[in-house]
Amino acid sequence: MESFYARHMQILDSGRAEEWAEQFTEDAVFDVPTLPEPVRGRSGLVASVREGRRKLAESGQRHRHWQGVMDIRPQGDGTLSVRAYTQVLASTVGEAPEDGRSWLHRVCVCEDVLVVEGETFLVRSRKVTRDDLD
Amino acid sequence: MESFYARHMQILDSGRAEEWAEQFTEDAVFDVPTLPEPVRGRSGLVASVREGRRKLAESGQRHRHWQGVMDIRPQGDGTLSVRAYTQVLASTVGEAPEDGRSWLHRVCVCEDVLVVEGETFLVRSRKVTRDDLD
Amino acid sequence: MESFYARHMQILDSGRAEEWAEQFTEDAVFDVPTLPEPVRGRSGLVASVREGRRKLAESGQRHRHWQGVMDIRPQGDGTLSVRAYTQVLASTVGEAPEDGRSWLHRVCVCEDVLVVEGETFLVRSRKVTRDDLD
Repeated sequence: MESFYARHMQILDSGRAEEWAEQFTEDAVFDVPTLPEPVRGRSGLVASVREGRRKLAESGQRHRHWQGVMDIRPQGDGTLSVRAYTQVLASTVGEAPEDGRSWLHRVCVCEDVLVVEGETFLVRSRKVTRDDLD
Repeated sequence: MESFYARHMQILDSGRAEEWAEQFTEDAVFDVPTLPEPVRGRSGLVASVREGRRKLAESGQRHRHWQGVMDIRPQGDGTLSVRAYTQVLASTVGEAPEDGRSWLHRVCVCEDVLVVEGETFLVRSRKVTRDDLD
Repeated sequence: MESFYARHMQILDSGRAEEWAEQFTEDAVFDVPTLPEPVRGRSGLVASVREGRRKLAESGQRHRHWQGVMDIRPQGDGTLSVRAYTQVLASTVGEAPEDGRSWLHRVCVCEDVLVVEGETFLVRSRKVTRDDLD
């Protein structure tokens, strides 16, 4: 599970939108504060990653998504319920030592429902809330 | 073990004081920098969580306890010695985009002795030190 | 693997240079942004930890290396490739409540090749990049 999320977050941070979307089920629901309404399905997931990358490039920042504190609960229907914390770490890039810097950008709670798919998992639903929003 | 700490910290951050105290042995010793002297036993643990929640509500902040970098060593007496790092992440809540923000509040070292209790663990002692205090 | 890295980082943060260097192979290559060129071999690793400790003592800071988001891939030759994120957390020590503080100092990507050595691992190569440097 740790391994699934490590890879999942590294794929996201690398901007590999299609590869990331393939880690969701085809009818996945993705509900995050940065989107006006929940996204359904992989094409919407790909579009949301691409839009995120475009904004990130404009801002000149690098972001890392760090999943941890994972409370994993197997459900009666064979799915897994995962409630985890997510840190979004941001950096600006600078040549001079005083230019580049890093900071904690966001603290989120990430609630997933995962389905087992062979030796890995697919995300069937994800709901993210930000600690700095009510 | 990861799973035990994930649930333990999420219970704490949710303010479920009794449920959290039940994850300690009845005679547990809890020694943290925010308390003038070590707490002994579950009623003291419940009181310390409630007092912490009261102060947090006053401050308007949300806190998350993030346990990681866990060095787990089985002891000869059947207990487990765990030396881990803890991040305390803080956020203020704001409606406007510029209002809410998150930051790294504390970096701590958490030294626990755990006893095995059926399929889970109980904390028999906890000593927390803060990196910003000597 | 989590356990290996937990101990490895705690040894580094404790300044136990020789013990840390012994977790690398004798011909290990260690390539990090703080060094002008890659270090080869344990004596160079010991020297780099000691130099780091000297600078840290001068700065009056404490640092913690927090490894996470570990993507572990077994290789055909029996080694393990690990791509992880590393947070470097810094604190200054102060007696008065307003003096001491902690912050996220660096966000890094750490790419290791590990060899299996009995029941533990040795680092054969490490390449670290900093998010705030290009």
